[in-house]
Amino acid sequence: MKLPVDADRLRADIERNATFGAIEYDEPDKRGRTNRTGTPTNRRARDYLTGRMEAAGLDVTVDSVGNIAGRWTPPSADPDRSPIASGSHLDSVPEGGIFDGPLGVYAALEAVRTMQDAGVEPDRPVLVVSFTEEEGGTYADGLLGSTVAAGEMEATDALGLTDAAGDTLEEALSRIGYRGEGRLDPTSWAGFYELHIEQDTALEREGADVGVVTAITGITHCQVELKGEANHAGATAMDARTDALAAASEFVLDVERAATDVVESESETAVATVGSFSISPNATNVVPGRVEAGVDIRDVRRESIERIVTAGRESLARLERERNVKTTVKRPFDVEPESMSDRLRAAAHASADAVGAEAIDIHSGAAHDAMRIAQSTDAAMLFAPSRDGISHNPREWTDWDACATATTVLTGAIARAAGMDAR
Amino acid sequence: MKLPVDADRLRADIERNATFGAIEYDEPDKRGRTNRTGTPTNRRARDYLTGRMEAAGLDVTVDSVGNIAGRWTPPSADPDRSPIASGSHLDSVPEGGIFDGPLGVYAALEAVRTMQDAGVEPDRPVLVVSFTEEEGGTYADGLLGSTVAAGEMEATDALGLTDAAGDTLEEALSRIGYRGEGRLDPTSWAGFYELHIEQDTALEREGADVGVVTAITGITHCQVELKGEANHAGATAMDARTDALAAASEFVLDVERAATDVVESESETAVATVGSFSISPNATNVVPGRVEAGVDIRDVRRESIERIVTAGRESLARLERERNVKTTVKRPFDVEPESMSDRLRAAAHASADAVGAEAIDIHSGAAHDAMRIAQSTDAAMLFAPSRDGISHNPREWTDWDACATATTVLTGAIARAAGMDAR
Repeated sequence: MKLPVDADRLRADIERNATFGAIEYDEPDKRGRTNRTGTPTNRRARDYLTGRMEAAGLDVTVDSVGNIAGRWTPPSADPDRSPIASGSHLDSVPEGGIFDGPLGVYAALEAVRTMQDAGVEPDRPVLVVSFTEEEGGTYADGLLGSTVAAGEMEATDALGLTDAAGDTLEEALSRIGYRGEGRLDPTSWAGFYELHIEQDTALEREGADVGVVTAITGITHCQVELKGEANHAGATAMDARTDALAAASEFVLDVERAATDVVESESETAVATVGSFSISPNATNVVPGRVEAGVDIRDVRRESIERIVTAGRESLARLERERNVKTTVKRPFDVEPESMSDRLRAAAHASADAVGAEAIDIHSGAAHDAMRIAQSTDAAMLFAPSRDGISHNPREWTDWDACATATTVLTGAIARAAGMDAR
Repeated sequence: MKLPVDADRLRADIERNATFGAIEYDEPDKRGRTNRTGTPTNRRARDYLTGRMEAAGLDVTVDSVGNIAGRWTPPSADPDRSPIASGSHLDSVPEGGIFDGPLGVYAALEAVRTMQDAGVEPDRPVLVVSFTEEEGGTYADGLLGSTVAAGEMEATDALGLTDAAGDTLEEALSRIGYRGEGRLDPTSWAGFYELHIEQDTALEREGADVGVVTAITGITHCQVELKGEANHAGATAMDARTDALAAASEFVLDVERAATDVVESESETAVATVGSFSISPNATNVVPGRVEAGVDIRDVRRESIERIVTAGRESLARLERERNVKTTVKRPFDVEPESMSDRLRAAAHASADAVGAEAIDIHSGAAHDAMRIAQSTDAAMLFAPSRDGISHNPREWTDWDACATATTVLTGAIARAAGMDAR
């Protein structure tokens, strides 16, 4: 079974989506966009997607937290059978790339269109899905729409989350017309595929066309506060200071060292990042009095994550003793490592073999909606190669041919999974 | 000659000024305000000052950059003789204290009122002065009004400076009604006194009532940019990162160490601070791609400042080699160390002796408008004790009795300087 996708149609959709929230750069190798949940940009991207779904004859629904689903029920399929779902997200980090998220959404749609064009009629309906607020940063720490879909958070709690300006998610979704009804429920799905760019260099190094994900790393976010004493930068002697930024700088380097130690000693997939600081008062002529640091720790081994968290706590205890700062740690986001479905992975490998694409097994260091959906039904992920592994950055890039090849593999995998009972 | 001031009248003015931009805190020992140049808060503070000047019979003028001067011409004085000026500033850092600036402005006004009440009529006019944008941070790096007054910057250049929102100083001053005409010209003054809180602990440690400043430290501000590569915090292996925040953290600690080395080896008055960071994209789940750091370096010895600047540049060169970041350094603000006038310092000591106040010689680690005015005419500074040396902070505090004592010493010093030719 070969189902080659329409590479130009796929590209046109992704490029059109990239115009929403597009950012202009002087450098030709940068192509970025900012698409935050609930903004006018976000509405335009959603409107374009639902329009394309309807043009392909899909039945579009929006759930209470703005998750979008387009259902294709082939004439041959029993409409009551559990569907195979596939998709990803449209939102981005600030100044993110154009593939992270949209490739998976439009590849799923392209898979349906390709099956329609080829006259392939699977036994089950196929659902094209776009989840709300995958990246986080506006209303939550990430994976919000899929977390609600997985039943791990109540929709009412999600809708009550506020952005930096105090607006609730409910207000924002209502404003853009995507505060729908009910809850997208993956327990009623026969399986879920997500195609995504790799965001690392394993496929590039191996010269492979597609990655079949074995497991997704767990993630812990810590919010760390370091309190010193704001004071005059000129009139406060060096030995009379309690400089919160100097203390936070030691913390950053301690976290980096702890992750490197874990990589060298027990788990080469471990990573830790201090990605954000909020400094008060943040003026050149004032000794910093307070720093809030956002920490992101990930690995496929739970124990390795805990070892880095412990090292971070030990660093803060040392800074309290040596620099006289006061520190607190919150841990608002904690997701377990998740294994992918053997059955769906086997279908993906079979699809790759059928079209002569080279597929390799790899792990995912990034979180994805699939890790939440895996709590409710069988889930699997495919990765497309990502140039230099750069993502969350305007230099993120996947060649259009590579997008098409990975989408072709996805299409065959969905067709196999959707028709599996009949074969 | 004893000229005791009205402590209650002085306190009432400072407390009223503290209501403009006041910030509420739960802790009883915190009393803060934010008074940024050109804001409605700034207008209310200026209106109150000019009202109090007029109530004392002063002739109020506003120059083109918003510097305010209130002239008292005693009946006995020749109105054409060069005046003795005294004052400070009303603006504050974000969440600053209530004394830094306003004490010196209202002490100068109280000195005039005290001479009026006592029937003292000096031979020269007395000018009460409030300079625009001393703290910097909104339109400049600090000392803006006094820099224009000293002829070190053209008024048109100052008026063209923009705030973070792109508003010019001229627009902001026009909006609040303080875009006046001409230029306050210290070369026509016979001398300038500025009373200010110490912002350090020398007076407290010595149990002294007032500090007579010998010299003000020089100041260098550096704007440092460190560019790495923004990337996905989960999918980018530890050894594949160019983390701008980790590099900037090393820089902070290197600058701190360089200043400590200079303190221990050649100049105990040296200080260096990394007070601000601007991080991009500043999201927990993204490896930081860029950091802009604001650095403040001060000492009474020019050579010590240069030694710390050199150490900072060496740190950046090392980070370019070891961490592969790209760095740039700008040096937008550079003020030489400045000695205070012996003649005005002698008058201040004589005033303190006459009222039985203990005065000691100290240096100023903070920049003050007096260091700019010293480029045009004789200048001197008095310091009042500052609890625990805390300033640029809502915990900044000087007891009301200490404010009154220092203002009494200032009054005698002004009276002596203004009547000096006659004695």
